[in-house]
Amino acid sequence: MHPFALDPRLDRDTLPVMSLGLCDLRLMNDSRWPWLILVPKRPGITEMHDLTPLDQTMLTFETALVADCMKKTLNAAKLNIGMLGNVVPMLHLHIIAREPGDPNWPGPVWGVGTREPYGDDEAARLVDLFRERVLCP
Amino acid sequence: MHPFALDPRLDRDTLPVMSLGLCDLRLMNDSRWPWLILVPKRPGITEMHDLTPLDQTMLTFETALVADCMKKTLNAAKLNIGMLGNVVPMLHLHIIAREPGDPNWPGPVWGVGTREPYGDDEAARLVDLFRERVLCP
Repeated sequence: MHPFALDPRLDRDTLPVMSLGLCDLRLMNDSRWPWLILVPKRPGITEMHDLTPLDQTMLTFETALVADCMKKTLNAAKLNIGMLGNVVPMLHLHIIAREPGDPNWPGPVWGVGTREPYGDDEAARLVDLFRERVLCP
Repeated sequence: MHPFALDPRLDRDTLPVMSLGLCDLRLMNDSRWPWLILVPKRPGITEMHDLTPLDQTMLTFETALVADCMKKTLNAAKLNIGMLGNVVPMLHLHIIAREPGDPNWPGPVWGVGTREPYGDDEAARLVDLFRERVLCP
């Protein structure tokens, strides 16, 4: 089995925030919605039920940690959490903060329009904010 | 706190399959995709991180059980798993079997077109199939 290496499309579309016990936490570089991604650092996995039971539990723990932090930090109305993988099969989990009236509300965010990257300062500010809040919830 | 009662829109749009330890398992009555829904039987919960840690772990266990069963039973290409709740806030988790070329592939299923209910015989056949396979995986 090869070691874990991030899918190049995930690498291109996201910015690193921090490494957790199981997952890499990354920020989707799309200013239309606050959008974090957890990528379990396990090679060759495409479905959550193919993780070991311990890794499944770790993914749940890290998802709840990041989701709680994100909702409180942004005072978000609702979170959308999903694992799709129709385009990028490497297992990854989306956590998106939604507000009534945001682009495509109340529909989903995936496949909507074109990604709108952050400016460099805004990306750095958000990465720092989430890193700090996840470490000290 | 009131006892758990299924949201009336979930009740209207889905068919009961079986009751698991934490969740009601239901079949979305939409013949365009094989689509199961897990609803934790806890009142007043809208986000997964608001479940107790034990309930979060139970939800993960039941999700993996149903997902593994669904993928093998249908020989599905990919599963899409999501918790959105933008329209129905009661916490519920979608597990959808996807195939290249199905409606809106590779986009998501939520908010796409109009639900196409099963005929009575087909609905009963699928409910029996999933009930049997979840009990004897």
